[in-house]
Amino acid sequence: MEQQYERGLKALQFVSGEAEPSVVTSLADIAPELGRHIVEFGYGEIYSNPVLEPRDRQLVTLGALAALGNAAPQLRFHINGALNAGCTREEVVEALTQIAVYAGFPAAINAMTAAREVFAARDAED
Amino acid sequence: MEQQYERGLKALQFVSGEAEPSVVTSLADIAPELGRHIVEFGYGEIYSNPVLEPRDRQLVTLGALAALGNAAPQLRFHINGALNAGCTREEVVEALTQIAVYAGFPAAINAMTAAREVFAARDAED
Amino acid sequence: MEQQYERGLKALQFVSGEAEPSVVTSLADIAPELGRHIVEFGYGEIYSNPVLEPRDRQLVTLGALAALGNAAPQLRFHINGALNAGCTREEVVEALTQIAVYAGFPAAINAMTAAREVFAARDAED
Amino acid sequence: MEQQYERGLKALQFVSGEAEPSVVTSLADIAPELGRHIVEFGYGEIYSNPVLEPRDRQLVTLGALAALGNAAPQLRFHINGALNAGCTREEVVEALTQIAVYAGFPAAINAMTAAREVFAARDAED
Amino acid sequence: MEQQYERGLKALQFVSGEAEPSVVTSLADIAPELGRHIVEFGYGEIYSNPVLEPRDRQLVTLGALAALGNAAPQLRFHINGALNAGCTREEVVEALTQIAVYAGFPAAINAMTAAREVFAARDAED
Amino acid sequence: MEQQYERGLKALQFVSGEAEPSVVTSLADIAPELGRHIVEFGYGEIYSNPVLEPRDRQLVTLGALAALGNAAPQLRFHINGALNAGCTREEVVEALTQIAVYAGFPAAINAMTAAREVFAARDAED
Repeated sequence: MEQQYERGLKALQFVSGEAEPSVVTSLADIAPELGRHIVEFGYGEIYSNPVLEPRDRQLVTLGALAALGNAAPQLRFHINGALNAGCTREEVVEALTQIAVYAGFPAAINAMTAAREVFAARDAED
Repeated sequence: MEQQYERGLKALQFVSGEAEPSVVTSLADIAPELGRHIVEFGYGEIYSNPVLEPRDRQLVTLGALAALGNAAPQLRFHINGALNAGCTREEVVEALTQIAVYAGFPAAINAMTAAREVFAARDAED
Repeated sequence: MEQQYERGLKALQFVSGEAEPSVVTSLADIAPELGRHIVEFGYGEIYSNPVLEPRDRQLVTLGALAALGNAAPQLRFHINGALNAGCTREEVVEALTQIAVYAGFPAAINAMTAAREVFAARDAED
Repeated sequence: MEQQYERGLKALQFVSGEAEPSVVTSLADIAPELGRHIVEFGYGEIYSNPVLEPRDRQLVTLGALAALGNAAPQLRFHINGALNAGCTREEVVEALTQIAVYAGFPAAINAMTAAREVFAARDAED
Repeated sequence: MEQQYERGLKALQFVSGEAEPSVVTSLADIAPELGRHIVEFGYGEIYSNPVLEPRDRQLVTLGALAALGNAAPQLRFHINGALNAGCTREEVVEALTQIAVYAGFPAAINAMTAAREVFAARDAED
Repeated sequence: MEQQYERGLKALQFVSGEAEPSVVTSLADIAPELGRHIVEFGYGEIYSNPVLEPRDRQLVTLGALAALGNAAPQLRFHINGALNAGCTREEVVEALTQIAVYAGFPAAINAMTAAREVFAARDAED
């Protein structure tokens, strides 16, 4: 189990670009077990499976979160993750534009709001 | 506009592997305009934009449709499209497994039902 | 309360075109209270409010059910109801086509499947 | 009908812990009829049915609202209601953690944000 | 194509009541192509089709967006559009109240929050 | 990890009433890893946590799946699980009726269809 956690933490650090992933620290006060499941299962089991490349996984996740349209913090997290995994900003914008076809224009427009915030935060960091 | 339709039809033929895409012919009796919009806008405008590769687009679409979980015919269509665009069956299964993290296990399990049907249909054709 | 039920039953009979609305009879074995709530609240309170015309209400409902995309039996019921309330088939098809803009093409395509079934059932009755 | 309203108001007062439930007062300016329906139908008919205990009902509602993931104000309201009906904070956190299995981790994480706000507000009141 | 854009812009100006529609200008920095698709396809193709009146289209759209419950900016936009297309405030409130029947009370309550903001903004402009 | 699987399998056997849970065997041909995750994470980690009783968990799950309205096989599975965990049929019907308040009548009606099938299957087994 420790191995699973270590492997997941490494994957989560890669996606988030954070040494101490904020999704875990932000859950520590209220639901530390949920934070542990995200690391162990989400990243240690699923994300660490080498059948799909990180960039491929981020495209799947952008599709899922932009289409659901009810998880803005996670969409921002994974737009950032897509850039960390090698997507260009143009590719992210195009992937989110494509959501209009499968989940409608409001979903695509609101996903662009998320993208704009992520791009601005990255520009501010430089 | 004709150019847009021709371009879209070519993209749709590639994704579907059909010379006369059934999504268009099946709408001809009731909503031919909707069929035209799918070709012109969905494939002639969005899909034909070269910023994203077809395989990338299919990963985004699998994410969207599997997460929404309410469009089995279209999910089957795009699982087939993902295979036509270069994904292996293992990659498709892994992409749909990943949906469990973002939209829950029922969405992933039901997406596997769609994948099983597509794989069986392709096996039957061989 | 009896007045509320009577008023609701009349509205439901109008929308469904059925003397004994099947939504009530089909729930009688398992959840008769749910059937009663549909008549009393859904039709006796909401639908009977004269601020909106029946045809207007059916357009709102087609938008809601086609966008949600997870309630095919109810969508068929209300496509039939829209025709009973004065919409033409062309208007129904156009309303469902418009759903592509707000909820994506899969939702619109699947709504057309529902419409085709309703139109065929009405043709068969003639 | 008056009896239905009185019965519903009592149930709503119990769930909300408010003498004048804010969901009713906040709708008074724009949609007083909607406020009336919530009391009469939602609480006077459904909630007042003794087949399920209030604590049981709150567990069903937490499941529904956390899974839908698009109704944060109502989720906060019903997290508070679950505590009023006898759930412990640990049970609420566990119920929301379980949502990860059925609707994905983003839904569970965002539900924890709602829970954190409710817990803090209750702490501030003490 | 230019004709399609001009026709769409005119329809969008009518719905929004804006000479330079903000949905287009707000996307100009990040996803100008998405803005173009909204005008050309959403308004130039779908909205401009005369089979449905603008007021009818707004009722369908209110139903779709209020039921989905995850697109507050677009719901506000189309509540405003419904008023521009001839709906009264009472009709808008009634249409959103009806959503309780098809998508639950939380969706209806949150739609009223959107309506309140639109009504207040219009009052402030007078 | 083996311990996690064993613990999960026991929980899944309890919920399903099956010695060899069909959700695992049915995934064996196409996505055995997904079957393993359901046992290890879903049941071995989440379900086995003693903070909530099985009956409580089933109420949360019925709320989630009935509200989402796009996972009929899983809803049937968990209606059966709720009965196995001590809910009466009347309580299940009441929990699903309550869904009308939070996700609309179509979700509640379609959940009753699932309940009717589960009840009939159990009657047939007796």
